Amino acid sequence: MSFLVKHRLSKIFQPLNMPAKSSKITSKSLKLMLDLGFIQNSVPGCFNFLPLGIKSLQKLTKIIDEEMSNIGGQKMLFPSLINTKLWNDSGRLEEAGPELFKLQDRHQKSYILSPTHEEVATEMLSTLSPLSYREFPLKFYQISTKFRDEIKPRFGLMRGREFIMKDMYTFDIDLNSAKKTYEEVCESYENIFKTIGMDFVKVLGNSGLMGGHLSHEYQFKSSIGEDNLLHCESCDYYVNAELCEDRSKCPQCGDSNKIKVHSGIEVGHTFLLGEKYSKLLNTKYISMNQESKVLQMGSYGLGISRMLAACLEVLSTDSDMRWPNSIAPYNIIILPAKEGSKEETLTKGVPEKVYSFLEERIPDLRDNILLDDRTGLTIGRRLLEAKRVGYPFIVVINKRTSEDSSLVELFHTKTKQTMYLTYEALLDYIKQNVH
Amino acid sequence: MSFLVKHRLSKIFQPLNMPAKSSKITSKSLKLMLDLGFIQNSVPGCFNFLPLGIKSLQKLTKIIDEEMSNIGGQKMLFPSLINTKLWNDSGRLEEAGPELFKLQDRHQKSYILSPTHEEVATEMLSTLSPLSYREFPLKFYQISTKFRDEIKPRFGLMRGREFIMKDMYTFDIDLNSAKKTYEEVCESYENIFKTIGMDFVKVLGNSGLMGGHLSHEYQFKSSIGEDNLLHCESCDYYVNAELCEDRSKCPQCGDSNKIKVHSGIEVGHTFLLGEKYSKLLNTKYISMNQESKVLQMGSYGLGISRMLAACLEVLSTDSDMRWPNSIAPYNIIILPAKEGSKEETLTKGVPEKVYSFLEERIPDLRDNILLDDRTGLTIGRRLLEAKRVGYPFIVVINKRTSEDSSLVELFHTKTKQTMYLTYEALLDYIKQNVH
Repeated sequence: MSFLVKHRLSKIFQPLNMPAKSSKITSKSLKLMLDLGFIQNSVPGCFNFLPLGIKSLQKLTKIIDEEMSNIGGQKMLFPSLINTKLWNDSGRLEEAGPELFKLQDRHQKSYILSPTHEEVATEMLSTLSPLSYREFPLKFYQISTKFRDEIKPRFGLMRGREFIMKDMYTFDIDLNSAKKTYEEVCESYENIFKTIGMDFVKVLGNSGLMGGHLSHEYQFKSSIGEDNLLHCESCDYYVNAELCEDRSKCPQCGDSNKIKVHSGIEVGHTFLLGEKYSKLLNTKYISMNQESKVLQMGSYGLGISRMLAACLEVLSTDSDMRWPNSIAPYNIIILPAKEGSKEETLTKGVPEKVYSFLEERIPDLRDNILLDDRTGLTIGRRLLEAKRVGYPFIVVINKRTSEDSSLVELFHTKTKQTMYLTYEALLDYIKQNVH
Repeated sequence: MSFLVKHRLSKIFQPLNMPAKSSKITSKSLKLMLDLGFIQNSVPGCFNFLPLGIKSLQKLTKIIDEEMSNIGGQKMLFPSLINTKLWNDSGRLEEAGPELFKLQDRHQKSYILSPTHEEVATEMLSTLSPLSYREFPLKFYQISTKFRDEIKPRFGLMRGREFIMKDMYTFDIDLNSAKKTYEEVCESYENIFKTIGMDFVKVLGNSGLMGGHLSHEYQFKSSIGEDNLLHCESCDYYVNAELCEDRSKCPQCGDSNKIKVHSGIEVGHTFLLGEKYSKLLNTKYISMNQESKVLQMGSYGLGISRMLAACLEVLSTDSDMRWPNSIAPYNIIILPAKEGSKEETLTKGVPEKVYSFLEERIPDLRDNILLDDRTGLTIGRRLLEAKRVGYPFIVVINKRTSEDSSLVELFHTKTKQTMYLTYEALLDYIKQNVH
């Protein structure tokens, strides 16, 4: 019998306990991602994503792509180089100031490196002949690298100078339909957080640089969060504290007895922009009455690399990563016995068999099972490492299996339970707990 | 009966015949991609990728990811911002000169925008404690945006200032194993071109800026190609003409009677670099005898956005796009009858039924079938457009189907044949011709 094992840990570059360079370790997630070989320091505020980091990143991206497709989001890609004039005209060149990376090309033309693409998305439509009202709403999104010259990049992926963001731009024919689209995208964001499996709060937000009618932030509560969120437990209202003049009273119900302040990590931000950019760039459509009218716009950001770190920040312990099952680099790791041990001889082929069995019986797990074939290391050492990385299910092929080949050991990382299970029982247990 | 149709052309943003801005139309592929709404002009040498362009790009990316995984390629992501010092130390800062985009951050630290990552990939390993010889070969790759300040960006995606590239960096313990790895990656590149379905030639290359022992270029022959390739038809040897002092004689077999010169578009380039970067950055491993030794390196590029355009350049006519089946945005387009026509009434539900039938019976076609539900337009108009975009199979639900509901019309774009087929015959025909 031969089984195809595609994912072997010995073939994955995962440098452990890399030197932290000069940069300070300012967050738990940063320390864990560096220690466990998910990312590596590059220039300040920038990181090399290593294979396990990429694996999680791709799973997160897939969830977002699927949800964007569900609401009719159309995937695009805008260049990182933006004509400075475009941001000068919108007034944001001055407002954003030193947070923008600026450069000139060989012909002395000026560019900024895109932190966001409202102007570019709007310009895209304004260079076309105005579209008919029938074509709207339009919902464009991209997943790409963004740049921001943070004065003090910190917390690793949570406040970097180069980061991966999903940004969406919607266009509607009037404010009412723009509001509907806004609600739809907000709901879609909530679906994304639910699919990932993270608790979040939706907070009345600060429009800041963006401008517009209305904005909401999606926040993960965390002690290292840089935002202060006012929560009225009386009416369950959340608002960014920056918006409150009187922080002792709920701006919604007026109650002052049940106000709590939380720290939050902003992972998403939605803006109902209205005409701010479309008016400026003269971005119009042709109405039912053949009139040309200005489009209403929405803009929506989701920090992808930031969210990866934020999940870890919220769930992990100081020493061990903990993942939502949805974005763990692999859901299951299988640890064969140590090379040269009696157990190895007695369990020959079992690890590969378990791997194939699970992959075959739970097709969702394709590409989500890892064999830790570094059998030169003891099981104890590999088990410790697997727990630190936080693979949700750790299957150990050890003494017990060598005595009774129908049983394997399962360590369930979330509950910290160790069980001895038959293949079928293992299958059932994983199926019931994998989502 | 209800059928789920996921991909409807009315929901896809495809602005036709966009104004060409001031930039010149310098290639057939550029004209077609602009005219048919695959890309849009942005700042000089940069483009917005629109949804159909993204669709083809993603298919190309998937082929490359799979092939990279087959040879043990590990996916990473390096930042675009590179410390200028790193390139100064390697000597490339001066060599590349004005082709580099340069910038400073708010603290006056200098960066370049990455055109390629040899120094960064090498530095990644040199900051670790040297790895054991057992860990090699290591093969890292990324797919990411690259930057080059071309003095004259032209031919659209073929010579842009911001482009998408797959770059791979391999590390081996000695030159012999580095050569083996080099051969393996070359073979893998050939598999990629074969999977895509494009004729290519492998040409002895010019190492140029990269340096190193050996290099090969992968070229698509095309009249607008900027490289001159010397081909000896006697011994079937290809070499970049830049390398030949005497262009009238084959540098391999010496024959001078069968020398032809071709123009080519370089879509891939492989370099056996040896120690050039690893020595400089002191990138070492620990040998079997516990000695610390310098690693041997290879570097491999594949222009992804360029290849997209190059395929079109080679296959298309002046007016119509032609795709290899593997990367056509959709393989099949289905055209229902015109809204309000007698045929529409008589064929109600048929287009959706054909869509579901094909998707169900050819699972490979999931997400590759498109319904042109813009039924306000005549069939003739939509058929013309579908031919221009070059969808490989065009299924028309028209008069003939309204007379005999078991028959549909198939236009096979490659052979220009029109056929009337039963569902099963349609299925067979597509299955036989889709690859």
